[in-house]
Amino acid sequence: MFRNRHTPVGAKPGTLMINSHAERPVIRVMKYKPDHLEEHEIAAVAELKDLLEENAVCWIDVQGLGDEKVLREFAELFSIHPLALEDVVNIPQRPKIERFEKHTLCITRMALAREEEIEAEQVSLFVGPNYVLTFQERSGDVFDPVRNRIRQGGPVLRSSGPSYLAYALLDAVIDGYYPLLETFGEKLEGLEDEIVAQPHPAVLQEIHQAKRDLLAIRRAIWPQREAVNTLIRDENPLITETVRVYLRDCYDHCVQIMDGVETYRELAGGLMDVYLSSVGNRQNEVMKVLTIMASIFIPLTFMAGIYGMNFENMPELHAAWGYPLLLVVMVAVTVTMVIFFQRKGWIGQRRADVGAEAD
Amino acid sequence: MFRNRHTPVGAKPGTLMINSHAERPVIRVMKYKPDHLEEHEIAAVAELKDLLEENAVCWIDVQGLGDEKVLREFAELFSIHPLALEDVVNIPQRPKIERFEKHTLCITRMALAREEEIEAEQVSLFVGPNYVLTFQERSGDVFDPVRNRIRQGGPVLRSSGPSYLAYALLDAVIDGYYPLLETFGEKLEGLEDEIVAQPHPAVLQEIHQAKRDLLAIRRAIWPQREAVNTLIRDENPLITETVRVYLRDCYDHCVQIMDGVETYRELAGGLMDVYLSSVGNRQNEVMKVLTIMASIFIPLTFMAGIYGMNFENMPELHAAWGYPLLLVVMVAVTVTMVIFFQRKGWIGQRRADVGAEAD
Amino acid sequence: MFRNRHTPVGAKPGTLMINSHAERPVIRVMKYKPDHLEEHEIAAVAELKDLLEENAVCWIDVQGLGDEKVLREFAELFSIHPLALEDVVNIPQRPKIERFEKHTLCITRMALAREEEIEAEQVSLFVGPNYVLTFQERSGDVFDPVRNRIRQGGPVLRSSGPSYLAYALLDAVIDGYYPLLETFGEKLEGLEDEIVAQPHPAVLQEIHQAKRDLLAIRRAIWPQREAVNTLIRDENPLITETVRVYLRDCYDHCVQIMDGVETYRELAGGLMDVYLSSVGNRQNEVMKVLTIMASIFIPLTFMAGIYGMNFENMPELHAAWGYPLLLVVMVAVTVTMVIFFQRKGWIGQRRADVGAEAD
Amino acid sequence: MFRNRHTPVGAKPGTLMINSHAERPVIRVMKYKPDHLEEHEIAAVAELKDLLEENAVCWIDVQGLGDEKVLREFAELFSIHPLALEDVVNIPQRPKIERFEKHTLCITRMALAREEEIEAEQVSLFVGPNYVLTFQERSGDVFDPVRNRIRQGGPVLRSSGPSYLAYALLDAVIDGYYPLLETFGEKLEGLEDEIVAQPHPAVLQEIHQAKRDLLAIRRAIWPQREAVNTLIRDENPLITETVRVYLRDCYDHCVQIMDGVETYRELAGGLMDVYLSSVGNRQNEVMKVLTIMASIFIPLTFMAGIYGMNFENMPELHAAWGYPLLLVVMVAVTVTMVIFFQRKGWIGQRRADVGAEAD
Amino acid sequence: MFRNRHTPVGAKPGTLMINSHAERPVIRVMKYKPDHLEEHEIAAVAELKDLLEENAVCWIDVQGLGDEKVLREFAELFSIHPLALEDVVNIPQRPKIERFEKHTLCITRMALAREEEIEAEQVSLFVGPNYVLTFQERSGDVFDPVRNRIRQGGPVLRSSGPSYLAYALLDAVIDGYYPLLETFGEKLEGLEDEIVAQPHPAVLQEIHQAKRDLLAIRRAIWPQREAVNTLIRDENPLITETVRVYLRDCYDHCVQIMDGVETYRELAGGLMDVYLSSVGNRQNEVMKVLTIMASIFIPLTFMAGIYGMNFENMPELHAAWGYPLLLVVMVAVTVTMVIFFQRKGWIGQRRADVGAEAD
Repeated sequence: MFRNRHTPVGAKPGTLMINSHAERPVIRVMKYKPDHLEEHEIAAVAELKDLLEENAVCWIDVQGLGDEKVLREFAELFSIHPLALEDVVNIPQRPKIERFEKHTLCITRMALAREEEIEAEQVSLFVGPNYVLTFQERSGDVFDPVRNRIRQGGPVLRSSGPSYLAYALLDAVIDGYYPLLETFGEKLEGLEDEIVAQPHPAVLQEIHQAKRDLLAIRRAIWPQREAVNTLIRDENPLITETVRVYLRDCYDHCVQIMDGVETYRELAGGLMDVYLSSVGNRQNEVMKVLTIMASIFIPLTFMAGIYGMNFENMPELHAAWGYPLLLVVMVAVTVTMVIFFQRKGWIGQRRADVGAEAD
Repeated sequence: MFRNRHTPVGAKPGTLMINSHAERPVIRVMKYKPDHLEEHEIAAVAELKDLLEENAVCWIDVQGLGDEKVLREFAELFSIHPLALEDVVNIPQRPKIERFEKHTLCITRMALAREEEIEAEQVSLFVGPNYVLTFQERSGDVFDPVRNRIRQGGPVLRSSGPSYLAYALLDAVIDGYYPLLETFGEKLEGLEDEIVAQPHPAVLQEIHQAKRDLLAIRRAIWPQREAVNTLIRDENPLITETVRVYLRDCYDHCVQIMDGVETYRELAGGLMDVYLSSVGNRQNEVMKVLTIMASIFIPLTFMAGIYGMNFENMPELHAAWGYPLLLVVMVAVTVTMVIFFQRKGWIGQRRADVGAEAD
Repeated sequence: MFRNRHTPVGAKPGTLMINSHAERPVIRVMKYKPDHLEEHEIAAVAELKDLLEENAVCWIDVQGLGDEKVLREFAELFSIHPLALEDVVNIPQRPKIERFEKHTLCITRMALAREEEIEAEQVSLFVGPNYVLTFQERSGDVFDPVRNRIRQGGPVLRSSGPSYLAYALLDAVIDGYYPLLETFGEKLEGLEDEIVAQPHPAVLQEIHQAKRDLLAIRRAIWPQREAVNTLIRDENPLITETVRVYLRDCYDHCVQIMDGVETYRELAGGLMDVYLSSVGNRQNEVMKVLTIMASIFIPLTFMAGIYGMNFENMPELHAAWGYPLLLVVMVAVTVTMVIFFQRKGWIGQRRADVGAEAD
Repeated sequence: MFRNRHTPVGAKPGTLMINSHAERPVIRVMKYKPDHLEEHEIAAVAELKDLLEENAVCWIDVQGLGDEKVLREFAELFSIHPLALEDVVNIPQRPKIERFEKHTLCITRMALAREEEIEAEQVSLFVGPNYVLTFQERSGDVFDPVRNRIRQGGPVLRSSGPSYLAYALLDAVIDGYYPLLETFGEKLEGLEDEIVAQPHPAVLQEIHQAKRDLLAIRRAIWPQREAVNTLIRDENPLITETVRVYLRDCYDHCVQIMDGVETYRELAGGLMDVYLSSVGNRQNEVMKVLTIMASIFIPLTFMAGIYGMNFENMPELHAAWGYPLLLVVMVAVTVTMVIFFQRKGWIGQRRADVGAEAD
Repeated sequence: MFRNRHTPVGAKPGTLMINSHAERPVIRVMKYKPDHLEEHEIAAVAELKDLLEENAVCWIDVQGLGDEKVLREFAELFSIHPLALEDVVNIPQRPKIERFEKHTLCITRMALAREEEIEAEQVSLFVGPNYVLTFQERSGDVFDPVRNRIRQGGPVLRSSGPSYLAYALLDAVIDGYYPLLETFGEKLEGLEDEIVAQPHPAVLQEIHQAKRDLLAIRRAIWPQREAVNTLIRDENPLITETVRVYLRDCYDHCVQIMDGVETYRELAGGLMDVYLSSVGNRQNEVMKVLTIMASIFIPLTFMAGIYGMNFENMPELHAAWGYPLLLVVMVAVTVTMVIFFQRKGWIGQRRADVGAEAD
């Protein structure tokens, strides 16, 4: 989730870095009033001029940033500052709110599940007096429920102006992190089970990956929270008082996600301790087996060695009771050692350990 | 203690997520004046209209959130903002204070001992000019002492308006964390004894669990503290000056609980160090036993090996003193080794270690 | 040093929890003017009415909190708020300053050496226009030097009103932490010597205990510092400008004690590292002894084994030079191994290690 | 990247410490108006007097600080405060903004790739009403793109006064950290691969070096960020409103670089854990091999020892089936041990470990 | 560098603790105007009355605090507050600025190289309208360059009043930490070399000592920085606007020293990791040698043991090719094991490790 691209050092500010793999922009417009809705997919930016209207809200949604000419046309039509356009195109930017004379720019990072992988995608919103203009890196987003609410004629949404629409989109972006967090919760639980069952070294790398991903989420949400807070506090005429109440709810969601991230980071840290202790434990068991085997057999082998010597004057060798007695002594030594190890808890406890781990 | 539920991404704000297992609401009303008390269990929200009265305090306590219709009726009767209702139902929310035109909403998290397990339950308080409206997730709470104080006609409580009642409920919720903290204290002491006696790997997971639970308590108490502080500082006309003094006491309790949490977290961290060191120590002991056994017997076995060789020209083998002399040498070597290990402190100290651990 | 007691959950605020072991209160009064001093030990609170006088300072010192009736009488006589009385009795409270209409309450924690152990005891000061009222948990305190200064007629103390007396008491409480800190310094130095000489596992627990105690001191001093700061900044008419200068000195002492605590905590953390490394080092030595013994004797034993075989066709066995030659080879192998281990620094360095440790 | 030079203790403020290896200053001037551009390389500071003109922007770029006389001449011509001159010469200084009466001084640290190594070089900018004066330690910088933009007559740059030029230079310096960060990204990825393949101890030192370098970057960027923020907030008449918007972009870049640094530091910390775990794992494997070998052969050797004894009364020795039976028992013991180790996961798992590492 | 002395608990504020080993005070006076300089060493404080003059700056430098009477005379002559005098004498105090009616007190801690050891010494400055009064614990200081600048008639110093002199002294004290920091740099580099060459356990204690010393420096510089900041911000009439500019430079130096301290602390932390890893590595090597030796010889010894058995029915023993064949098998087993260990990288890699460490 962490990428870093940058304009050439010393380049003119406002230089656009169109990625050669970037999708070509597709422009969709939803124009609505309380009792009216039109949807268009338009080919040229110029068509927008006729659509924008004072009493209706226009949501112009641009998916794909692969055509500098189109972007420049947008910039001209909506009087977008060169630096704002640069922020839209030169991805990724830190989420932020920037107020310009004619509109407010809101940069957000959207988490999006795409074929079993989670991708981050920048969504830039321009909120104007009668329009919301969104730029997305790629097609596909988390905004379908919002579109449906517009289509179904939700009374609040339809009658509350562009700032409420912007709130609805922002809220959709932020709420998109909840399923992501849940995925982490499940992943970490899975890792915990794995660690207890059999600690692979690969688990460690997975834990680190999870920690890194959580950090990336934190990096995305933290400035988002700041941005929402700025929207609430600043006396921005584009944000109505009603929307401010909703933004406070949005702020609460950011804080809740941050709390979740912190909890999972703590959990991941704990997992690492459990992993290391589990590995240490297994090493300990290896040592114990070695020590028990060696401690029992080394003295026995020594005794056998004694009577393997070829001294002429060894009366025990000639006694009939020599061999049986030695065997008895050997059994006695073995039993003593086993009792000693049991008392130390090395033999009994080892089984207890395994049991404890299996719990 | 950590759960995370969320509305579908992009859902309309104010969407209620009624859990299918949620209890059906039971509504109890206590209406009191200094010299008067009525208690009712009512079936329909509409009955409340007749109960609310300007000069009496009405405590409407709703236990169970399982009926959207009832909740919507409450919302309409008390002019509850859709987002406030969402906060009440979509659990868990971070504890917070939110001021609305007609009442103040206070979200808190109650810790409640339920059959040997500690559960967290959200309690939402609406404080109005002549009522306190509380919503609880489930039946059962920590408010019985408050109910009894009302019944017994406590002069302060009976004559101090809804903000004092709200304080009393908030105080009961916060004080409910003290027994929880004590449980942790006892648990950690128990773990310490276990670690010193016999360090199981299972202990580590218990320590981590305790740390996680303590973190969850901290997450619950920290915003509570903020919320209480907001109540004290903000010039909320619903909070009388007298109640402000009591809220300061409540704030002190929050801080004390936070201190306790921090102390126990520190303690848990220390326990982990002791556990790891204890495990390391045992491994060390294993190593010493192996080394002592091997170091003593390996040279002896070598000597026995020497005289087990079949060279014809080995004069020692034929000498009558060969065998006894070798035995003497072997004893001498053994004694030397034992003295060497005692000087190193491996034999004497081992016992001392065990003693130290047993202290 | 960490205790946590609390009133029953949901209890009426102002409920007093008199501990059944609490000492019965003993009330001592010192009443002084610049040129006059009386000392009384009084039996009933009612006697105080005659003693309080506008132009003299009365220090009423109550030791022991074991009688609710007496405490309630005090509360009535001095118009003590129920919550303030609760703070005095329900111990321990966080140190704090609370301003009431007729007096200012200052909660402090006193560290007191009592028979080789350090105990914490809460001292609550009420500073009024012509009196200072102190409540202590038990008899015995650090205030004797202050009493002596009053008796000896210290001109500043005698003529500066109750706020100066309160400062003198506060200063005595805070300065009482210096000897405590010194004790920790000596303890940690002692532990360091022990670790270097012989690292017992018990040392680890002592280090943790020290860290915990230092944390408890920090918890006691930190809010004290805040409280003193509040006294300096707030425009409290009971605190004269002269006393404010002295309180700044008191504040500096708090900061110095905090610095000392932090330094000792750092030191304790360092000791733990040294302990762990010392233990690791000893394990390393064990391993080296094992490896050297095994590596030298295992090949020799193998050679002896070879010539202990009973093959008929082993010409070496019949040669007269067989045995002596083998012995020579064995010596050569041993010398080679010893040189190898010396080059690796295992034999020479081991002694160096011991020397380094002994430094 | 960390150096620390200082004037002799107690020296007069403003003392210049000309390093004996410092390059002699080369002075280049670019003077431009919207429709006009001159470039000069001048030999004496006095020539500047004729070049400075009210309606044109003069960029005087001084590379090399090796001549005190020249520097003093600059100080006199531009009324540079002795402490400002000291900051320019006595390198390195912390990046900062300092406002003087006639100009604003901006100290920055430039990261510059020079023959496979990254060097830090201090650039000091004086922004006056009609000039920008830059001092660099050595020849070579990141400003060529800016020079080219001036030469190509960029309309914004040419017509926006010295504060825009200063912004352009500052932006070039800050953007110069992006490639540096990328280098770290690649380095850390390389180290990760190395650790997984074969953990050398040298890797640890490289990780530490990376962490140290990242810290140095953080130390350079953090105050830079502060400085840019000061420029944005302070009502400095030399900074036009237009430039303030661009500086906000510059500020965002600083924050982004800080984020990157933090991410890489986290990554480096994670690598260390992986390294340590990888080393521990290998040690574990060594232990397992030893234990398996010893545990299998020690009992077998013991059995062989038994029948190598020379007791007369050992009936097994004379039986024809003695030797074959023993061999069968030995094979049985070996098989039992192997199955035991496989069950414990020591033999099968070892291979799995290797596979997991190779992933 | 950490000492803690304190007045007896409960002592009267202003009590002086004259250390019995304290040097007797030596009083030196430098009195200067732009065109005039006198130097005196005076015996009695009373002589100062004639020296103080409205239009000249008097620097009264007192070295040694061993005479309470002299100190009290100073206090009376300069109207020093008892608490200020206590701060001067009861050493060490935290660096701070305290404004009194007639002068400003500045407590600083001077680092001073004294016979191969670094000592900290408190310097207290009183800045009055026409004098600077400094108290030092012992003779010997870092002020000689300042004295020489006065003697040589530095125009700024001679004509800028006592606040500039105070700045010059403060600057000398702060700059005195630079050489101290350099010493740490060299020490840590030396330790790094030692660790790589041969990790003694004594190194660990040296690292801890360095960390502790760096912390002590941080504790000394941090409040110094605060104090300088207070001087810059507060509208103290004794500090001229010119001096404020210089103090900002002084503040920058404090920040730079703090940065250096942090960098070295980070470095020390890194060294500890390298040390631990280096020790772990050596232990690993010990293990490998043991494992290789044991794994090669244990099977061989077993084979020799087999043919040392005395079974009658062992056909191999009677075969002529028995012994040579066994030797061949033994060589084959050895070669197999060596190849196995080389493949595992235990034999080849071990040398690589050593090489890597030597780099």
